[in-house]
Amino acid sequence: MTRGFYIGRFQPYHNGHHRVVEQIADEVDELVVGIGSAGDSHTDRNPFTGGERMMMITKALVDVDLVTYVVPIEDINRNAVWVSHVQSMSPRFDIAYSNNPLVVRLFNEAGIEVRQSPMFERDVLEGTEIRRRMVEGDDWENLVHPKVAEVIEEIDGLERIRRVADTDSS
Amino acid sequence: MTRGFYIGRFQPYHNGHHRVVEQIADEVDELVVGIGSAGDSHTDRNPFTGGERMMMITKALVDVDLVTYVVPIEDINRNAVWVSHVQSMSPRFDIAYSNNPLVVRLFNEAGIEVRQSPMFERDVLEGTEIRRRMVEGDDWENLVHPKVAEVIEEIDGLERIRRVADTDSS
Amino acid sequence: MTRGFYIGRFQPYHNGHHRVVEQIADEVDELVVGIGSAGDSHTDRNPFTGGERMMMITKALVDVDLVTYVVPIEDINRNAVWVSHVQSMSPRFDIAYSNNPLVVRLFNEAGIEVRQSPMFERDVLEGTEIRRRMVEGDDWENLVHPKVAEVIEEIDGLERIRRVADTDSS
Amino acid sequence: MTRGFYIGRFQPYHNGHHRVVEQIADEVDELVVGIGSAGDSHTDRNPFTGGERMMMITKALVDVDLVTYVVPIEDINRNAVWVSHVQSMSPRFDIAYSNNPLVVRLFNEAGIEVRQSPMFERDVLEGTEIRRRMVEGDDWENLVHPKVAEVIEEIDGLERIRRVADTDSS
Amino acid sequence: MTRGFYIGRFQPYHNGHHRVVEQIADEVDELVVGIGSAGDSHTDRNPFTGGERMMMITKALVDVDLVTYVVPIEDINRNAVWVSHVQSMSPRFDIAYSNNPLVVRLFNEAGIEVRQSPMFERDVLEGTEIRRRMVEGDDWENLVHPKVAEVIEEIDGLERIRRVADTDSS
Amino acid sequence: MTRGFYIGRFQPYHNGHHRVVEQIADEVDELVVGIGSAGDSHTDRNPFTGGERMMMITKALVDVDLVTYVVPIEDINRNAVWVSHVQSMSPRFDIAYSNNPLVVRLFNEAGIEVRQSPMFERDVLEGTEIRRRMVEGDDWENLVHPKVAEVIEEIDGLERIRRVADTDSS
Repeated sequence: MTRGFYIGRFQPYHNGHHRVVEQIADEVDELVVGIGSAGDSHTDRNPFTGGERMMMITKALVDVDLVTYVVPIEDINRNAVWVSHVQSMSPRFDIAYSNNPLVVRLFNEAGIEVRQSPMFERDVLEGTEIRRRMVEGDDWENLVHPKVAEVIEEIDGLERIRRVADTDSS
Repeated sequence: MTRGFYIGRFQPYHNGHHRVVEQIADEVDELVVGIGSAGDSHTDRNPFTGGERMMMITKALVDVDLVTYVVPIEDINRNAVWVSHVQSMSPRFDIAYSNNPLVVRLFNEAGIEVRQSPMFERDVLEGTEIRRRMVEGDDWENLVHPKVAEVIEEIDGLERIRRVADTDSS
Repeated sequence: MTRGFYIGRFQPYHNGHHRVVEQIADEVDELVVGIGSAGDSHTDRNPFTGGERMMMITKALVDVDLVTYVVPIEDINRNAVWVSHVQSMSPRFDIAYSNNPLVVRLFNEAGIEVRQSPMFERDVLEGTEIRRRMVEGDDWENLVHPKVAEVIEEIDGLERIRRVADTDSS
Repeated sequence: MTRGFYIGRFQPYHNGHHRVVEQIADEVDELVVGIGSAGDSHTDRNPFTGGERMMMITKALVDVDLVTYVVPIEDINRNAVWVSHVQSMSPRFDIAYSNNPLVVRLFNEAGIEVRQSPMFERDVLEGTEIRRRMVEGDDWENLVHPKVAEVIEEIDGLERIRRVADTDSS
Repeated sequence: MTRGFYIGRFQPYHNGHHRVVEQIADEVDELVVGIGSAGDSHTDRNPFTGGERMMMITKALVDVDLVTYVVPIEDINRNAVWVSHVQSMSPRFDIAYSNNPLVVRLFNEAGIEVRQSPMFERDVLEGTEIRRRMVEGDDWENLVHPKVAEVIEEIDGLERIRRVADTDSS
Repeated sequence: MTRGFYIGRFQPYHNGHHRVVEQIADEVDELVVGIGSAGDSHTDRNPFTGGERMMMITKALVDVDLVTYVVPIEDINRNAVWVSHVQSMSPRFDIAYSNNPLVVRLFNEAGIEVRQSPMFERDVLEGTEIRRRMVEGDDWENLVHPKVAEVIEEIDGLERIRRVADTDSS
């Protein structure tokens, strides 16, 4: 049995993430989706809470034919202990999926196999782009799963991201 | 749509907890199971990590005919902000289930409906009793779901709880 | 100009504390009242929030002919830096008033003059006794300033202390 | 009885803040002034400690005909629990005053009425401008209450802000 | 080249610890001495600061013919990440020395070799006994290295431990 | 007996730092070298852990004819208590050496003598320059002590700094 671990901030969970999950589904038996910076919310870059992102991901994954766990991971602000922190909050996993150079390096130093997911860098850009569209009223719904759009509407997410966008929010 | 929230430490998740979940299943459409003190582990009272408890619960809930979310909740050590902390890490919920007087009071002061689960006080005792049996080699498997016993075996849980049991573990 | 600093947890602020303040009023020009463990609340030993205790003290001190500051002090859990922490949150002071041996020692090591307030030890006992009376329904109003009793009523304090009293409240 | 809550960093408390307080005084019976980022000090942007700012505000408010509380609020670095944190450290309040979009949004989501104070945006600019004048030796005393200038002199504030101004002070 | 790691609280560093170090010196090329709970001080159980304990150990180890490092380790309050925390603060090591069951278990789970030091349990008792003697004025100097006694005198350690001994020191 | 305290981040410890230490050696009997931001690692600006930096410094100081202590200092993120934090983790010292304006100011306000070390500002630049050279493959070994180069090789430091350099590493 092989279990994978895929981490992101998912602000919001969008189609780029979803394609990565579908791709990983072919390689593992079970998948843990880790929500990074789970304690951050109400900022330009991290508008949604850990709980709201958990809803988005769980509802979007109903489609996917794979046993999945969704785990919020609060920041610990100590890179050298971050892998242990993740491991203690997550079901055990064999392979980590990331293209973030820091995350790759931390897992490597801990002796954990890391596989690159080729779309990741573009994903980050899409996250920024989707939030920009939300703020400015451009079309964004077609970039996310319909269930994610429902969650964002339920939590009044557009109003929030517009309000906090003109804040320096230190 | 009604969503319930049921919190415990689940050290380990046992049949008492499972009966509570089955009972709640009749009252709500979806259930969030919150793992309290998720950052604690390797002590007499909290032997298992948040991730290990997430595995126990998720696997045991496969049987239950209910949409469920399992959310690790790290301690925040400030009672007055604890409800906000829980809400930010969890999908939105309408009713909280607990018999712990402090938890009941905190939710009440926040204006959230709380329902008592009559077995809870006995559950706590069972948790202590199960851990005692694990340490002393008495029979405990019949007090937990078979999937929970599998997880405890996979993580070498008996060995751990016995090792940390004779520690003051400050 | 001499400014004094008097620290306590004030759970609740009672007549013993008030007599100490009146006594200090003869020795200083201004007084800072520091509310210790300001972040703790909803427990047997610390039922009231920092803000609730600030209300009790401010309203009771309206009577006293002395310039006073009321400062909540959150715990920092590092004895060796506690004095610096207090000094950074408080207006500057010349004399500290306490009978708590640890507090006396910490101020002494920092080179700050400390004066003993002879009733303090009894005060502590009175705090425990007043909370016991609140829980058990015995008379307690005559042990506090009438304004303090009003605050406790306004915040539904009796109900809270009774609810949390039968909790182990870890 | 209506109690208002007005929050700022007050680095330093200046005439813009003071005019806001005078304006609020017509609308409420009591006012809580919350000192934000109370634990920050000795930086370019936050030169003064929470205790020093408490002195500035308390002394300037002696003039104002209004019951006031001055409450230092340490940062909690979790937007989703910040309102609960403020509420636990402050006397209860009915209306919050702010023009900061994040603060407005957080109070709104918590169901608390927020009123805009039209001068706030200009206030922020004035804070930056006053600190610049302090560093460069331009005239600043006429932009603050005379009592505030006294406090800054007593704590040797000009020397401090000049020293820390050429630091990156991470 | 083999490097060992020996951890204790060293309140104070006494002859029992010193004999353990001398014994380890035969097995390793270099030794890291980790000072546990380095941030704790001024309590009955942890009277001395991390810096004071560093002085005791460094001065006592001048005698020992071994390359040694002395590393204060602040508590991190998360057993599951404690080994990573220790590793990030210490030079790399191959073998850990401890008889504390929790420490042994944590290193074991991280795949690090642990060797028992037979005197350890007695050492703990000696630490408690030495502190009792310090408080009550009994003879203690013959239980510690002469350099340790010098440090305790220099920092006025007896006075401190007596003062904080009758405190509940929350 | 005079003891000095010299603090830096030492990312890595280089010849500029080493010349400062040699210069201080003429003025004091003993020297404490404090490793600032000891908990930071794996970033562009702070690539090496506290333990790795302790190894670099300890090995380079073997040459220097001076009693030295090497003390990792974790950040405390409260400037007003930082000096107390340093003092609690370090052997007592009489003189602090720094050219960082914030550090100088904090020690001055605490009444501790500070001496400027004329090369310090250039040191900082050298730190940045050495890390740039490491990332880009330019020559850097001649800017550090041979023992420091050995440590960096042992810990595979070049690979790490290159990996984390293209990360925003929030």
